[in-house]
Amino acid sequence: MQIPTLSKRARVLTGAAAAAAVAAGAFGAVSATASPAAGQQTPVRAVVGKSLNQSTHLSLAAATKAAQGALAAAQKEGQKVSVAVVDRNGNTLVTLRGDGAGPQSYESAVRKGFTAVSWNAPTSELVKRLQSAPNLKDIPGTLFLPGGAPVQAQGAPVAGIGVAGAPSGDLDEKFAQAGVAALG
Amino acid sequence: MQIPTLSKRARVLTGAAAAAAVAAGAFGAVSATASPAAGQQTPVRAVVGKSLNQSTHLSLAAATKAAQGALAAAQKEGQKVSVAVVDRNGNTLVTLRGDGAGPQSYESAVRKGFTAVSWNAPTSELVKRLQSAPNLKDIPGTLFLPGGAPVQAQGAPVAGIGVAGAPSGDLDEKFAQAGVAALG
Amino acid sequence: MQIPTLSKRARVLTGAAAAAAVAAGAFGAVSATASPAAGQQTPVRAVVGKSLNQSTHLSLAAATKAAQGALAAAQKEGQKVSVAVVDRNGNTLVTLRGDGAGPQSYESAVRKGFTAVSWNAPTSELVKRLQSAPNLKDIPGTLFLPGGAPVQAQGAPVAGIGVAGAPSGDLDEKFAQAGVAALG
Amino acid sequence: MQIPTLSKRARVLTGAAAAAAVAAGAFGAVSATASPAAGQQTPVRAVVGKSLNQSTHLSLAAATKAAQGALAAAQKEGQKVSVAVVDRNGNTLVTLRGDGAGPQSYESAVRKGFTAVSWNAPTSELVKRLQSAPNLKDIPGTLFLPGGAPVQAQGAPVAGIGVAGAPSGDLDEKFAQAGVAALG
Amino acid sequence: MQIPTLSKRARVLTGAAAAAAVAAGAFGAVSATASPAAGQQTPVRAVVGKSLNQSTHLSLAAATKAAQGALAAAQKEGQKVSVAVVDRNGNTLVTLRGDGAGPQSYESAVRKGFTAVSWNAPTSELVKRLQSAPNLKDIPGTLFLPGGAPVQAQGAPVAGIGVAGAPSGDLDEKFAQAGVAALG
Amino acid sequence: MQIPTLSKRARVLTGAAAAAAVAAGAFGAVSATASPAAGQQTPVRAVVGKSLNQSTHLSLAAATKAAQGALAAAQKEGQKVSVAVVDRNGNTLVTLRGDGAGPQSYESAVRKGFTAVSWNAPTSELVKRLQSAPNLKDIPGTLFLPGGAPVQAQGAPVAGIGVAGAPSGDLDEKFAQAGVAALG
Amino acid sequence: MQIPTLSKRARVLTGAAAAAAVAAGAFGAVSATASPAAGQQTPVRAVVGKSLNQSTHLSLAAATKAAQGALAAAQKEGQKVSVAVVDRNGNTLVTLRGDGAGPQSYESAVRKGFTAVSWNAPTSELVKRLQSAPNLKDIPGTLFLPGGAPVQAQGAPVAGIGVAGAPSGDLDEKFAQAGVAALG
Amino acid sequence: MQIPTLSKRARVLTGAAAAAAVAAGAFGAVSATASPAAGQQTPVRAVVGKSLNQSTHLSLAAATKAAQGALAAAQKEGQKVSVAVVDRNGNTLVTLRGDGAGPQSYESAVRKGFTAVSWNAPTSELVKRLQSAPNLKDIPGTLFLPGGAPVQAQGAPVAGIGVAGAPSGDLDEKFAQAGVAALG
Repeated sequence: MQIPTLSKRARVLTGAAAAAAVAAGAFGAVSATASPAAGQQTPVRAVVGKSLNQSTHLSLAAATKAAQGALAAAQKEGQKVSVAVVDRNGNTLVTLRGDGAGPQSYESAVRKGFTAVSWNAPTSELVKRLQSAPNLKDIPGTLFLPGGAPVQAQGAPVAGIGVAGAPSGDLDEKFAQAGVAALG
Repeated sequence: MQIPTLSKRARVLTGAAAAAAVAAGAFGAVSATASPAAGQQTPVRAVVGKSLNQSTHLSLAAATKAAQGALAAAQKEGQKVSVAVVDRNGNTLVTLRGDGAGPQSYESAVRKGFTAVSWNAPTSELVKRLQSAPNLKDIPGTLFLPGGAPVQAQGAPVAGIGVAGAPSGDLDEKFAQAGVAALG
Repeated sequence: MQIPTLSKRARVLTGAAAAAAVAAGAFGAVSATASPAAGQQTPVRAVVGKSLNQSTHLSLAAATKAAQGALAAAQKEGQKVSVAVVDRNGNTLVTLRGDGAGPQSYESAVRKGFTAVSWNAPTSELVKRLQSAPNLKDIPGTLFLPGGAPVQAQGAPVAGIGVAGAPSGDLDEKFAQAGVAALG
Repeated sequence: MQIPTLSKRARVLTGAAAAAAVAAGAFGAVSATASPAAGQQTPVRAVVGKSLNQSTHLSLAAATKAAQGALAAAQKEGQKVSVAVVDRNGNTLVTLRGDGAGPQSYESAVRKGFTAVSWNAPTSELVKRLQSAPNLKDIPGTLFLPGGAPVQAQGAPVAGIGVAGAPSGDLDEKFAQAGVAALG
Repeated sequence: MQIPTLSKRARVLTGAAAAAAVAAGAFGAVSATASPAAGQQTPVRAVVGKSLNQSTHLSLAAATKAAQGALAAAQKEGQKVSVAVVDRNGNTLVTLRGDGAGPQSYESAVRKGFTAVSWNAPTSELVKRLQSAPNLKDIPGTLFLPGGAPVQAQGAPVAGIGVAGAPSGDLDEKFAQAGVAALG
Repeated sequence: MQIPTLSKRARVLTGAAAAAAVAAGAFGAVSATASPAAGQQTPVRAVVGKSLNQSTHLSLAAATKAAQGALAAAQKEGQKVSVAVVDRNGNTLVTLRGDGAGPQSYESAVRKGFTAVSWNAPTSELVKRLQSAPNLKDIPGTLFLPGGAPVQAQGAPVAGIGVAGAPSGDLDEKFAQAGVAALG
Repeated sequence: MQIPTLSKRARVLTGAAAAAAVAAGAFGAVSATASPAAGQQTPVRAVVGKSLNQSTHLSLAAATKAAQGALAAAQKEGQKVSVAVVDRNGNTLVTLRGDGAGPQSYESAVRKGFTAVSWNAPTSELVKRLQSAPNLKDIPGTLFLPGGAPVQAQGAPVAGIGVAGAPSGDLDEKFAQAGVAALG
Repeated sequence: MQIPTLSKRARVLTGAAAAAAVAAGAFGAVSATASPAAGQQTPVRAVVGKSLNQSTHLSLAAATKAAQGALAAAQKEGQKVSVAVVDRNGNTLVTLRGDGAGPQSYESAVRKGFTAVSWNAPTSELVKRLQSAPNLKDIPGTLFLPGGAPVQAQGAPVAGIGVAGAPSGDLDEKFAQAGVAALG
């Protein structure tokens, strides 16, 4: 979930939060990791203040928990599925190719997750929207089949969980929702 | 730039910032935009607390300013280039296909930006790293030619600016750095 | 917009225009930029006269203005969208990934712009054409959803503006038209 | 070849040229072709004046002549080749898959043409530039092998001719140059 | 068009034809062209007799004539189109991007030609077949829109001509048929 | 292998051969297969005489025999490989994914076959050519590793056999040559 | 067919089976093939016991037999088709491009085989499922046309056979079923 | 890891194992999952006996454990990486996009895992093989950078673990090996 137009006050606060993070060493670690020789190279002018936005993401730990929650729900019912968690920026965070799941299930799961996070709704709901806008399904990366569920933070989408491989899309989506519930 | 392991305190602060943003209407707008009928659909369990990370991004306004700064620097020297700004998550934020720039310049600019933000260093520096790890250049999406510059916030990468089309990579990179400087 | 079969008279006039441009240094600059060592290399026979056509394009400055006009119209209504401007030759000139816009919006915007400039009509009109030719939507690069608007010069298409990410295609197209209007 | 920054005077002249073209029926034809029902649809604001640039292109007739000239030169020497002509905007204008030419020749010809027009130099020259910038060859769409030749108008690139399939790249390039010469 | 199961007698005859071609120098030229040093390398056992089939193809000269015939028919009616000729093996032989044709027309023409040669029927006929088998249109490389016409030799398909860019598919197909007729 | 410029006399002979094939029912079968309703549709003008070329291909039966010969040679030495046979037009005729062969072997085999038939030489020979033209290996679809062998008819290439997965390229190529030998 | 959750007892048995295979030299051969120098390199910790599953696959010999059975059935009826066999993991095992088969048939056959093995049903059955879930056909790699048949071991899918190129999908599927029958 | 040529005895044993699995309900579940209506559809002849091979795979549970082991090792050293586990058939089983890892790391991890499992060796070893066969790195799907480690069962490869994003490939590979060790 991205917060593009924070009020000035909010920005100051997150600025503080960011500073605190840096103070805690996390921030510097990013820099060191990505470019260990940053100190020696030509200095790059830092970006400050109002040019920056903060956005909220599911941590990898949480995404893994959600994916495993969805998988466990399927396994409890003897269903073989693949699971994916996709970030609000469209990047896949976690994939789990289920033992014995059909070969079509992996990419299907990724696309269901992408679709759910794109429109912030379960894909079973989104399928209905095709009645008024049938060509939505031509948008690259999407798949309009039940089995995708959005993960929300305060109503805004932060990720989508996609499940595929069960005999029906309703089952897939039940497992995806179980993945969301695992975060509660 | 992503901050994966904020201390608990930092998280609370940003939580406050996010709440402030919502109060200001921006947050709710995201929800409303993406899923106007969210109220009617099956409730989706909210994600709370420790599952969430905050990350810092260049705003689109800032990215556009940087891209235009790079382009202006090129135009001042009579050079025809294309410019791209790529986010730390690998997504392209802004592209500008220069009037009269060669057809190879557009995709080159995108890839230089991607490369700079991936390793948090100017691509002219990264070219040198190929001496010890020549196959880095086989990583999909990258281009190891001068002309890419990272945008940093407190030392961590938040975006990469890529410029292509000038007679030399050094010129391209000079213009990319001018784009970074436009954010100062 | 390309003018393939200029009358001989027209060609002479544009020949003059081109000559003027060269005299003003712009033309030579292209040559110098693209191939600074052109003077030293094996001479390449020049093309003259009737082999050449002139075509009209939106300048990058104008394309940027249009894209920002579309974005501003969306922001005024609190909508988070991505915007693209596509040339009559099918090349993307400008992209702006909106802060907080869904991950599906970027490529959607590009394809809407491509579709609008291909048929020189708003994509909301083109959607209706699918009733008689439903497979038009299978043409690579297209997307038949409202949100694309052509930019015309004397009735002929010179570019297409695509907007995506608002809750409805009608809103997307309203913002695209605002982008066109920004050029007026 | 694109002329991005025409002087105001040049623009007026080309404006006149364009008007003449419209008067001659060619321009209106473009509009009618692309959108026959343009009259009935919601009016789209026209773009005028300073937002437009003119660019010079090889006509399809000339591009075909060049491609056939290259092919004929190869046939005269008993060589089986494929030929392509690529526009300055990167679009392929003409392809000719030679009778008996190897299956690798078609795409090779297209990429050589793209490379030649991108840097406005024969690809045999461009191969030498790899000594100082070896990763130029990683730019998508390019191929750094002899056999590509630029077509220039007043020194600026308007197209590239690519030839592939002969036993040596030098032969390929000789034929490509013969294609350029056919336009003289 | 490929003749997979020639009777033994037919094979002997074509064997003679092939021998004649070799005697005339054409055959050896292929060998010499493709591998000038064939003589020095490790001998490769020759394939003889019953392992070989003969197939009939449109010559490049004929394919070019057909493409130009289609283009001329369109130009006579003031229509701006792109044209492609595709071989029975699915390879594109000739493409002509029409001056002023929309950017969607080039790939559309290629796919229409591919579709016509695949099923040996005009694409306007093939569109009707979708009533009983709607998913034929999901086969990669196809496009089910009028504008493709097969070229036949004794009833069997040897190539497909695709035209795209006119205001209606019927016009596109009329021009494609004119291309076929140019071979008569 | 394609014979583009048959002498007139050769063409007459192959015309006779083709007619004989039709009389034998094979030709008509092609037509009937591809378009069973050909009789009812708008007549399409037939192509005759000088517009047509004949080309020689490996039959599928022979290609399968060659592929199996290569596989058997590998199995005799306890090696697990994948095998592919590629036609002179670049199309893959046969693939065999070896039991236990590495996942990289399938596509490698196809590309080695493509490379061998493109230049009519074993890929071990072609690797050496990279010394003088290192960028040959950037041509799409090729792979410059030992393991590809051309199949020739009277010295001209009709197919390429590619083998991949053995511990060394020399072994791969030995097996590919065994595939060629199986046709003798 | 993959057996993901074998009971502990079953696992022990297959462990024994695997050990037997190793004792017979087959297992060691895999290791030796893939990495002949495995002995010298840094030791890699072996995986044992409960981390491993066994899955059942069609052997290449059987897959080839099935593909040839399908082809023979088509040839007996004078039909020209391409055939593919796809594994339960989605990998293509065998392809046969039929002499004279249309260029669309090769990829169609692969996708039909993929579809049949994914849902463990003939594709003619799967086409009917689109009535309730029309967007299943948007899953990447699938093709919902008759002509695909699953190969089952004890009811579970181990492969899919796809056939394409006959005048009707029913014929294609009849031949695919003949391929399955060839394994009986 | 695939065992293509099990001895007859081994096959009987695994047949017993499979039967046991079915008796335990797991097998039937596969069938029911993939095709719940299997009972009603046209019977498909079962494959029996010698047509089938058994292969050994890492379970998803084990693959997840390995991936998390690699991630934990990186986190302990404050490194931000992405991790992937790839099966011997080339399919990705698990991916974990690390919090804060560069955008290039995800696809790099997948490719390193693919490379390690393809040649059954750590990618740091495989990099050295490029000295004698430099074009190995052109095989699609591979990446020759340290950071990939094979998972072996009795010396044969069953999976590859890829790690990317740390400042050096040696670190990446150390973490990948930690992932392998987590299975011990």
